[in-house]
Amino acid sequence: MKIEKEQILVENQQQTTFHNESFDFLGSSLDKRGVDVEEVVQRLADFQVAIPSWALGAGGTRFGRFSFYGEPATLEQKIDDVGVLHALTGTAGAISLHIPWDIPEDYKAIRERAASHGLIFDAVNSNTFQDQKDAKESYRYGSLSNRNEAVREQAIQHNLDVIKIGEKLGSKSLTVWLADGSNFPGQDNFQTALLNTEDSLKKIYAGLPEDWKLFIEYKPYEPNFYSTVIQDWGTSFLLANACGEKAYTLVDLGHHLPNTNIEQIVSTLMVKGKLGGFHFNDSKYGDDDSTTGSVKPYALFLIFNELVYGMQHNPQNPYPAWMIDASHNIKDPLEDLIQSLEAIQEAYAKALLVDQEQLKVAQQQNDVVQCQEILQNAYRTDVRPLLERARLQMGSALHPLMTYRSLQVRDNLIKERGRHTVATGL
Amino acid sequence: MKIEKEQILVENQQQTTFHNESFDFLGSSLDKRGVDVEEVVQRLADFQVAIPSWALGAGGTRFGRFSFYGEPATLEQKIDDVGVLHALTGTAGAISLHIPWDIPEDYKAIRERAASHGLIFDAVNSNTFQDQKDAKESYRYGSLSNRNEAVREQAIQHNLDVIKIGEKLGSKSLTVWLADGSNFPGQDNFQTALLNTEDSLKKIYAGLPEDWKLFIEYKPYEPNFYSTVIQDWGTSFLLANACGEKAYTLVDLGHHLPNTNIEQIVSTLMVKGKLGGFHFNDSKYGDDDSTTGSVKPYALFLIFNELVYGMQHNPQNPYPAWMIDASHNIKDPLEDLIQSLEAIQEAYAKALLVDQEQLKVAQQQNDVVQCQEILQNAYRTDVRPLLERARLQMGSALHPLMTYRSLQVRDNLIKERGRHTVATGL
Amino acid sequence: MKIEKEQILVENQQQTTFHNESFDFLGSSLDKRGVDVEEVVQRLADFQVAIPSWALGAGGTRFGRFSFYGEPATLEQKIDDVGVLHALTGTAGAISLHIPWDIPEDYKAIRERAASHGLIFDAVNSNTFQDQKDAKESYRYGSLSNRNEAVREQAIQHNLDVIKIGEKLGSKSLTVWLADGSNFPGQDNFQTALLNTEDSLKKIYAGLPEDWKLFIEYKPYEPNFYSTVIQDWGTSFLLANACGEKAYTLVDLGHHLPNTNIEQIVSTLMVKGKLGGFHFNDSKYGDDDSTTGSVKPYALFLIFNELVYGMQHNPQNPYPAWMIDASHNIKDPLEDLIQSLEAIQEAYAKALLVDQEQLKVAQQQNDVVQCQEILQNAYRTDVRPLLERARLQMGSALHPLMTYRSLQVRDNLIKERGRHTVATGL
Amino acid sequence: MKIEKEQILVENQQQTTFHNESFDFLGSSLDKRGVDVEEVVQRLADFQVAIPSWALGAGGTRFGRFSFYGEPATLEQKIDDVGVLHALTGTAGAISLHIPWDIPEDYKAIRERAASHGLIFDAVNSNTFQDQKDAKESYRYGSLSNRNEAVREQAIQHNLDVIKIGEKLGSKSLTVWLADGSNFPGQDNFQTALLNTEDSLKKIYAGLPEDWKLFIEYKPYEPNFYSTVIQDWGTSFLLANACGEKAYTLVDLGHHLPNTNIEQIVSTLMVKGKLGGFHFNDSKYGDDDSTTGSVKPYALFLIFNELVYGMQHNPQNPYPAWMIDASHNIKDPLEDLIQSLEAIQEAYAKALLVDQEQLKVAQQQNDVVQCQEILQNAYRTDVRPLLERARLQMGSALHPLMTYRSLQVRDNLIKERGRHTVATGL
Repeated sequence: MKIEKEQILVENQQQTTFHNESFDFLGSSLDKRGVDVEEVVQRLADFQVAIPSWALGAGGTRFGRFSFYGEPATLEQKIDDVGVLHALTGTAGAISLHIPWDIPEDYKAIRERAASHGLIFDAVNSNTFQDQKDAKESYRYGSLSNRNEAVREQAIQHNLDVIKIGEKLGSKSLTVWLADGSNFPGQDNFQTALLNTEDSLKKIYAGLPEDWKLFIEYKPYEPNFYSTVIQDWGTSFLLANACGEKAYTLVDLGHHLPNTNIEQIVSTLMVKGKLGGFHFNDSKYGDDDSTTGSVKPYALFLIFNELVYGMQHNPQNPYPAWMIDASHNIKDPLEDLIQSLEAIQEAYAKALLVDQEQLKVAQQQNDVVQCQEILQNAYRTDVRPLLERARLQMGSALHPLMTYRSLQVRDNLIKERGRHTVATGL
Repeated sequence: MKIEKEQILVENQQQTTFHNESFDFLGSSLDKRGVDVEEVVQRLADFQVAIPSWALGAGGTRFGRFSFYGEPATLEQKIDDVGVLHALTGTAGAISLHIPWDIPEDYKAIRERAASHGLIFDAVNSNTFQDQKDAKESYRYGSLSNRNEAVREQAIQHNLDVIKIGEKLGSKSLTVWLADGSNFPGQDNFQTALLNTEDSLKKIYAGLPEDWKLFIEYKPYEPNFYSTVIQDWGTSFLLANACGEKAYTLVDLGHHLPNTNIEQIVSTLMVKGKLGGFHFNDSKYGDDDSTTGSVKPYALFLIFNELVYGMQHNPQNPYPAWMIDASHNIKDPLEDLIQSLEAIQEAYAKALLVDQEQLKVAQQQNDVVQCQEILQNAYRTDVRPLLERARLQMGSALHPLMTYRSLQVRDNLIKERGRHTVATGL
Repeated sequence: MKIEKEQILVENQQQTTFHNESFDFLGSSLDKRGVDVEEVVQRLADFQVAIPSWALGAGGTRFGRFSFYGEPATLEQKIDDVGVLHALTGTAGAISLHIPWDIPEDYKAIRERAASHGLIFDAVNSNTFQDQKDAKESYRYGSLSNRNEAVREQAIQHNLDVIKIGEKLGSKSLTVWLADGSNFPGQDNFQTALLNTEDSLKKIYAGLPEDWKLFIEYKPYEPNFYSTVIQDWGTSFLLANACGEKAYTLVDLGHHLPNTNIEQIVSTLMVKGKLGGFHFNDSKYGDDDSTTGSVKPYALFLIFNELVYGMQHNPQNPYPAWMIDASHNIKDPLEDLIQSLEAIQEAYAKALLVDQEQLKVAQQQNDVVQCQEILQNAYRTDVRPLLERARLQMGSALHPLMTYRSLQVRDNLIKERGRHTVATGL
Repeated sequence: MKIEKEQILVENQQQTTFHNESFDFLGSSLDKRGVDVEEVVQRLADFQVAIPSWALGAGGTRFGRFSFYGEPATLEQKIDDVGVLHALTGTAGAISLHIPWDIPEDYKAIRERAASHGLIFDAVNSNTFQDQKDAKESYRYGSLSNRNEAVREQAIQHNLDVIKIGEKLGSKSLTVWLADGSNFPGQDNFQTALLNTEDSLKKIYAGLPEDWKLFIEYKPYEPNFYSTVIQDWGTSFLLANACGEKAYTLVDLGHHLPNTNIEQIVSTLMVKGKLGGFHFNDSKYGDDDSTTGSVKPYALFLIFNELVYGMQHNPQNPYPAWMIDASHNIKDPLEDLIQSLEAIQEAYAKALLVDQEQLKVAQQQNDVVQCQEILQNAYRTDVRPLLERARLQMGSALHPLMTYRSLQVRDNLIKERGRHTVATGL
């Protein structure tokens, strides 16, 4: 399934008048506030978020897995799904593969298929948290941190293999997420586990191509866990520094203890040049992997405020890799991703509206009330016309979700693929 | 100090053109969405939030107390301060007194002064968490829950006295907030403490005038505490039921454990007819008493969504008493309150925009994506023109904070009162 | 597999001398503290904890399921497993079935088998959180709270069926645990969901035999959830009161928000006569279902302190139903349960050592330091000799875990059952 | 007031027989487990914890300050109070001063007085979180992180002055704890604040004598805060590395978000050679500064397990500085400290009983059940006889709290000092 530009154009036509009116009204009012509206729109158009290949099917829950039917059963179909997202939103211009769930058989064909949708291959993700069928060693008691050298070597080799695959696809970074940790006090020696992990990561780092980056995720806990080896940004930062300058910390919004000030972590990592990647999602209680922006949109805005600041002021930090890392248990995965992309763009747009110069002045005057006004003035603005305009410029849908439904994409996918397909890795 | 209508008019004039344009544009677009804009504006105008008399001076911190100068030193001046807020915002039409910090000397004069600002007296608040100078008994080990009957009786009598004072002012409700609890395991017998509290509240309830209500606050912890007697809404609800139909639970936004779903508590209390009052503030970590809407505006919107629903569907629940309960340590208290009032009105306005009929349909169809769209469509709307219009209709300031600064209110208060006044109770 | 008394006797013999010495030493020192040691031992012997039928196999994790082999594949084998636990510990004298995972085919045979191990059937557990194969309706969007009446009726009927099954086994209570809730703001109408649940529970309650009890669990969240219908004890309490006097709240240790004071909830429920049942486990972050006592043993002791107090002072509260509700992902399930039973007995024993009279005096004198001393004097006591003595009196193992390993129970189970059995429901 | 050895001896005599019996019984049983009891007792005797000079009076609460009377009004009296603690417990052999609350007038006299009690001067603590009377600059908007260079310089100079004072007393380390942070989003520029702090700390570090250490505390929040500059160990670690090898992270038990795995942080810092100091206290909800071991004694044991491991295996990490940092609002401060010291010693003793060799084997075999058994075998042991023996060897009290009460220390202090003294800094 592929959405054609013309289909979108037709859908857009009905909405264009109202869009133009609201864009003009917002534009002129932003203009008065000193905003370069055209530049904001351009930045929104340039902003691309990777879609992980495992997020295109329904996720499993403790209570069963409820498919939305027509799920992609092959890598080709996953790429097509991201293609649909990108055609509609103009923001999903990359796909992030998970190995071994998505090993291509024909690399050339896969690259061409991606290119036909305007997609590139973002970070590749290794998997040492599940045992593969024919694996010699088990990750039951950890992978890169395992006490058993043979297990560590298998896990290191897997990461090196993943890099090889990524190279053939044009990826430029490897994301390492570990479920290593312990379930009970005493089960693990924290120091040994940390040193083993450091050592393993260095070996992976040694196999990294010159122009690649290594992203190290952190996460405080898993269900039924007592500890995780890389529990917080501090541990990831320490490991990244131990590896070298191409190693970075990756922040996943859901991987924090209650009440953590994430925006400050983002800021610290950027000023130290170590924020490599960013995974979007949202949560109310734990690592819920809910739709981005569905629970705490203001926190997302504050985080983007730091990201925008960092991108403008921290040349020491590379441009971060953006990815959605969510789970779709109750929503059509593609609709869920459309909502996430909209929320991400919205937060970014609002952060771009923050008057950094005014803010600096208010901060210097310790005018705390005014500082809040400046942030909230940007946040309260209804920026949807800006997002629409950026999509319009790219030939994407003014209203992606509406168009998705209007074009009956899910029904078409079911017709093409049948109901009972299940995506690999789910 | 009193702000005259004319002063506000002059300030408004410079902003009226832009306001009219944006109101018209928003209005016509809401109109298309089926919103009765006039009704929304009227409801916003009708919505009144009480200001507590203790919130008009700078709060103390562990590290000192930093005054903003010109603080109100007397009850008269506190009323004037609320008058300023009400003149500017049109939303602060009530004052909530704290006894014994604010015992009037001349009731008639006080009532007339309040009336001259258009203010009424909302719930009166008792204080059994601090020892008063000449008190016979100490609340060091609790008040209404104290093991010592003499202490309980003093605390009960104080509440009865507070009711008497409230009657003379036209108040119609008593708010009981307790700091009773224990600092260490074993210190208290939970059952005795609860039963004593229940017994004490019943005695206060027995002294409640026919047309009054009793509001019972809950709170999970205080600094250095191990337990509080009324730790959650369940305990407050149990106590309110034990007292009778004029007793209600009062929800303070800051009085919850991390991650609590407060909107659901609101909903449960309303369907059971037991939500009596509501205290606004915000927080990032604990009971921070920050400016309302400064940290979690979307949560505030979701709460208002339940409040609006309850006010429309739950005749069994009385119209709740609204109050701001915040602390001002780093901002000019009046500016802080203006920001809180703005955020409250904003959340209320957005909740009024939620299309309840559409939402019901989407819920019935289990269209989770659409449910979220409906909420977020309301939330994403920039409702500031609606708030402005409501204020304009009441003769209040289009931009209260701007006008407050433009009229140099704080400077005038300092001139009038001097720099080093300190409000009673701070 | 069945452990014979003689096997245990032989194992015990090697440890008896040391046991006698330590018991005598501890006994005489407790005697000096005024403790009636014999009575404490008797109470420990009398204390019986139900084992849920689903806890005898390895639980699944996000990353796979790692069997310990020799798992029980049938209800008969599950009963045998609990028989092994009871033979070793003398504390696991009941089994709690989960329907439909454990529907007996031959009730008489099943009851005889249980009786042969000295086991009775405790509360039966319904399951409306998973869809069964041939079910007409799906619980995807809730069960007892579902908007769709047909779904609710199916869920109600299931509970009534479970009661029927329980009656044939001699059970006297039904435990209802719901995974009903919503994943996103707006998805559910909180009020409708609550009222539906209340209505459904009343219908189940109406079918409850005269001498049965209904236990209503609460839980704040599930992974990927935004709300649960019965989020806290207050909601469960409200529902239990709505049903009637045979309906009670059930407390599961893992079902609370961070930092909740659970012991106070226990105390409140008991003084109000509404604590029906209790599920043991432990956790560090969320609902981890870890081995009881493995993370927060002092909290467990404080909870038992309230339970002991309540059992002694609250005739209005029935004797609670005790059950372990844990998951075993990394430990042999039987070993895990042995460790849990040991920790539960330990906490109970220590709570029995608290000098309630002394404590009351210290509380009355507001001698907070002494209150803590009294609790910690009990807690610091090494009570293992008391547990051993209780087991010795019952013909159980002095050291259950050691005996379990020495008798090579797991190896024998694997021989009997084969390696790759999987328990129903896992 | 000074407690004489003879007074203690007399008190001990009545308890010696029972102590000997229980020590012998425990000793012989530990002997069988392979424990070198004498060595454990010696380590307990060697373990010394500093008492902060500000912890000797009652702390203030939001609701007033309740004195226990006879509080030390001068530095001399504070030293005497610590002398009392040290005489009774043998564990409080150091005092940690807070500048400017405790600036000595006559250094020689002060040092002699401390020496007469067997006390040394531990880390000195600077204070840039409160404005001093004649200070030119205010710390209202931060100290070492302040945007205003003059404020930073004043704060840096204060720290340099504190070092000078410490040198005259024989201190060897400076502890920097900051209350710098922001109350609202937008108020602060995180990057500027961090860089300013880093720069200020480097300037303080430059003034550090050769044989001194710099300890940098972290803390996630203060009441009414939105952010703190040094929010977590990662930030402190980063700053310590930026300063140099004499700079270290200091861990305060209360300075963590809910559910943080503190023992793992300790372990990470020690293996990286950066754990400089440790502040003991306990808490249920936030930074409660409760009596150590009063709420989570098992967590304290797990932390000590890491500390013991680190002290044995990490020569790269210096011997940490130990201090109690608690607040005493409802207990006699000296009794509170005695309880804390007892709990610290108990946790240390239990950690020393962990069979590290056995644990290593069990870990290598992935015998998770056995790992837990090993930890809990140590933890369940009643180690009080070991603590008593250590105190007996030092001429301290078998039962410090009992002796404190028996000698009527508080009454004597009141007689000496009067009732209404208030310690400086409270």
